[in-house]
Amino acid sequence: MDLESCLIPEIWIHIAEKSGIDDLRLTTRQVADYDELMKRRLAILDAHNLRMPAIVSMLQDMKPYDGAREFVDWVRDRTELVLLSDTFIQFGKPIMRALGNPTLFCHRLRIDSDGRITGYALRTADSKAGMIRGLRANGFRVMAAGDSHNDLSMLKNADLAYWFHAPESIASEFPQFESIKDYQGLKDALSKFLES
Amino acid sequence: MDLESCLIPEIWIHIAEKSGIDDLRLTTRQVADYDELMKRRLAILDAHNLRMPAIVSMLQDMKPYDGAREFVDWVRDRTELVLLSDTFIQFGKPIMRALGNPTLFCHRLRIDSDGRITGYALRTADSKAGMIRGLRANGFRVMAAGDSHNDLSMLKNADLAYWFHAPESIASEFPQFESIKDYQGLKDALSKFLES
Repeated sequence: MDLESCLIPEIWIHIAEKSGIDDLRLTTRQVADYDELMKRRLAILDAHNLRMPAIVSMLQDMKPYDGAREFVDWVRDRTELVLLSDTFIQFGKPIMRALGNPTLFCHRLRIDSDGRITGYALRTADSKAGMIRGLRANGFRVMAAGDSHNDLSMLKNADLAYWFHAPESIASEFPQFESIKDYQGLKDALSKFLES
Repeated sequence: MDLESCLIPEIWIHIAEKSGIDDLRLTTRQVADYDELMKRRLAILDAHNLRMPAIVSMLQDMKPYDGAREFVDWVRDRTELVLLSDTFIQFGKPIMRALGNPTLFCHRLRIDSDGRITGYALRTADSKAGMIRGLRANGFRVMAAGDSHNDLSMLKNADLAYWFHAPESIASEFPQFESIKDYQGLKDALSKFLES
């Protein structure tokens, strides 16, 4: 399952709001190339001298969505949950505790000894789909859920997949995946999948 | 990381003790072929009419080793932990809560509507090593730890591996892996690995 917009708000938007730096609201909708987007974001952090300790303290205010923790616990009582996210472990980790510490597979920021973010390392080029393929090759049946374009390859590679919290524009562009709006809907879908 | 003998006692031994059925102490040391061993175990359960609800209530008494939960939390504060076990999800799941619900990848028992265990399904033939290879192919560096022969392929496929709680006979048979005796030793090894 994806993390941002599914279980917690978008992390960069939260940092933009907390820091008051509106430029950090940039997303792949404005800057399609992810590497260019990340370079812009890191340059903005540098321009404002915003370093990891300050960012981590901003992230400590971040709360999962209403019902997200209960949903995560419900899933983990029944099967295994792995979060596949394009965030960075240093951003995601502080928020995992509020979700009961589910397993999070994501990327990594490069941070120097002064706390400055100097770059980032993607785990692999197609980390979400690769992990789904890896799990299926290891005998798992996988149900996937995500909200955005970067989840598409994950959804396509799963045994069963749903849009979750997806904008109508994305869900209607790829209607082969049913669009689910709330945690109860995901629970119902997962219950059926586990019985099938 | 392996589960039984590493974080919790051996599950079949626990069932043998709780049920008073000494025959359930059989291990791969007495019956080398795993499929034959499992068939013997299931026949013994049938002979004593021991079904899942009774077994689950026996497993609720099972406690992680002293220090295991603290160790698991320590690891998960720093990186991701995946337990790779040859137990069955219906046995392992009741015990995961006491460990803070780490992700557990294992096998599955077939249980009929009367709670009788009718068989088992291995996830894959070499599920531990396969998962390590899958994680590495997805950009992870993996440190592994286990105590027994069924962990050997996992240890061999990891970036760095240790025997943990292993009998001296096994550790000395495969001395390419350092043998660690306690959680503090594993923490020290993992700290070095994460900094390397």
